[in-house]
Amino acid sequence: MSDARKYFTYDKPFRFHRGGGLSQFTLAYETWGELNSRGDNAVVICTGLSPDAHVCSSDENPSPGWWEFMVGPDKPVDTNRWFVLCINSLGSCKGSTGPASVNPDTGELYRLTFPKLSIEDIAGAAHELVRTLDIPEIAVMIGPSMGGMTALAYSLQFGRVRHMINISSGISSTPFAIALRSLQREMIREDDEWENGNYGDGDGPKTGMRLARKLGMITYRSAEEWQDRFMRETIPLEEQGEDPFGPSFEIESYLQYHAQKFIHGFDPNCYLYLSRAVDWFDAKDHGFGMADSIARFKSALVVGVGSDILFPIYQQRQIATIMTEERTPVQFRALESVQGHDSFLVDAERFAPVVASYLEHL
Amino acid sequence: MSDARKYFTYDKPFRFHRGGGLSQFTLAYETWGELNSRGDNAVVICTGLSPDAHVCSSDENPSPGWWEFMVGPDKPVDTNRWFVLCINSLGSCKGSTGPASVNPDTGELYRLTFPKLSIEDIAGAAHELVRTLDIPEIAVMIGPSMGGMTALAYSLQFGRVRHMINISSGISSTPFAIALRSLQREMIREDDEWENGNYGDGDGPKTGMRLARKLGMITYRSAEEWQDRFMRETIPLEEQGEDPFGPSFEIESYLQYHAQKFIHGFDPNCYLYLSRAVDWFDAKDHGFGMADSIARFKSALVVGVGSDILFPIYQQRQIATIMTEERTPVQFRALESVQGHDSFLVDAERFAPVVASYLEHL
Repeated sequence: MSDARKYFTYDKPFRFHRGGGLSQFTLAYETWGELNSRGDNAVVICTGLSPDAHVCSSDENPSPGWWEFMVGPDKPVDTNRWFVLCINSLGSCKGSTGPASVNPDTGELYRLTFPKLSIEDIAGAAHELVRTLDIPEIAVMIGPSMGGMTALAYSLQFGRVRHMINISSGISSTPFAIALRSLQREMIREDDEWENGNYGDGDGPKTGMRLARKLGMITYRSAEEWQDRFMRETIPLEEQGEDPFGPSFEIESYLQYHAQKFIHGFDPNCYLYLSRAVDWFDAKDHGFGMADSIARFKSALVVGVGSDILFPIYQQRQIATIMTEERTPVQFRALESVQGHDSFLVDAERFAPVVASYLEHL
Repeated sequence: MSDARKYFTYDKPFRFHRGGGLSQFTLAYETWGELNSRGDNAVVICTGLSPDAHVCSSDENPSPGWWEFMVGPDKPVDTNRWFVLCINSLGSCKGSTGPASVNPDTGELYRLTFPKLSIEDIAGAAHELVRTLDIPEIAVMIGPSMGGMTALAYSLQFGRVRHMINISSGISSTPFAIALRSLQREMIREDDEWENGNYGDGDGPKTGMRLARKLGMITYRSAEEWQDRFMRETIPLEEQGEDPFGPSFEIESYLQYHAQKFIHGFDPNCYLYLSRAVDWFDAKDHGFGMADSIARFKSALVVGVGSDILFPIYQQRQIATIMTEERTPVQFRALESVQGHDSFLVDAERFAPVVASYLEHL
């Protein structure tokens, strides 16, 4: 596979929000389109917890990206018009420095010696890349899910963001979402193969990761969607096997299949760090909603779906309300998608026109 | 502790709905009040997955029961008027025969040799006890949660139920609920200490049970309730300990505390069997909603709460609709409780008057 991935290395000490730091770090990123001479057409996409920087296909990497319907030539985020930058989060394992990276000071993997990671650090590292690319001001920052928190953290810490599209996110996590993520982390950590973060290459807490991913899938989608898709369809008896507690419903096979796929693609320690960062973030720590906040936008689009249980719609309404109080003209859109938190990834029919229309009018 | 628990032993072969059977079984139960001479004042309470038969205190056992506010002298289910019978489900570990019981034919614990347990078997065993107690017809059958399924299964298989109170239950499980329970079972089974069901006395899959219980607690309550109760309260830093992924929010401590309490009171194999039974049940298998159904009631009360994600309110509405189509006069009550599926256990203020008023008018 040809690769469109680029790397930015920041080779100075970088301090973390909660203490400690790195002597250097690398971010993986991809870009599409061209930065114009005024440098005023940059769209920065902050990702959710697990995606890499490959948001859509390109000549260098024609494989479909995780938001293929949203970004590209003549797509809602039109790469003929915009210079699009998508960054793999600091702390992730898709090319950026994280717990699965080698610490250059020791020659060993960071593992749990990686500093406590916050959304603020993800935003801070992204900011260093944006400066290096000579982008004086970000035209539009787009953040779905965890990326919505990163976009808020970026704006609140560094300003210079003209427009904001914040999708299925919140100013902080609800106790319900914290409880779910805490349980996911516990599943991984209780797997003996985790070995306190010191699992070998190719090994690791596969059972814990599979359980955590299944719980993730259950909470990323919605009960309504599954009611429509699976009803109570059962697996044929002859395929159910001997195990008295093995899968007997289609929904159980579906979860098993998709969870198995995921666990080979994501590093468990990175998952723990990123998951914890989402729990910790609170935009109020940075004065979001306060008079002296530096996050001022020319306009903003805030989108959510009613079937999202992880970042329920009232959290997007809250973002919109605070921005409005801060005199940002806000479009708030509550979409009817049934796919829950993951809707922005799959419901092109509802999400594409909303984003396209907002950007067309900028 | 003095004990009000009674035992009923059925010493003939008992065939299970999905095949196999027991050469005999025992049910633990408790009663309150007196059966009148006509035998027409019997209230039978079918329990959720985990409770025992101790629904409320009595002279013999003054400790509070799991539905203390609902049952007792001058309570909504008034034991001065009604002869109340609460049965510990077949397959449970609170005195009734289940996977944790000794198989009298072998002298060994049943463990996974226990036959595949269905809600139909729980209802069938209860029916044998009801016959033995010389109750010609049950005046009111009350079933919350899994107990609501048991009450339906009983009525559909044996009839002779005059009134029905069905609470926070459904005619079957949604794929969302199946996915959650399937994951809970997987957590237990993936714990090495489960040993394929052959854990020693006092040992067992404590980690798996703790994880499963936490997931249960998350889904039994509601996001709204936790938002109100916990907000984003954190544990004081000095109490957070060294573990970088240990609890840092109050909600995490709360789950840990309550899950630890639970795991010492419930047998893991019994949990697996009962959990599976809830997934399998479908009242339509017994013609619920069909013209020839034998479940006809003089009246019914169907109650649910909008914040329940495990048995969402549309499932209670469905029960009410079907009963109405079958010409049972139905009171359907959607309550405003925020405690989710568990509301019936804790929201005395909303549940007590609804049940009291319905029973007063019988």
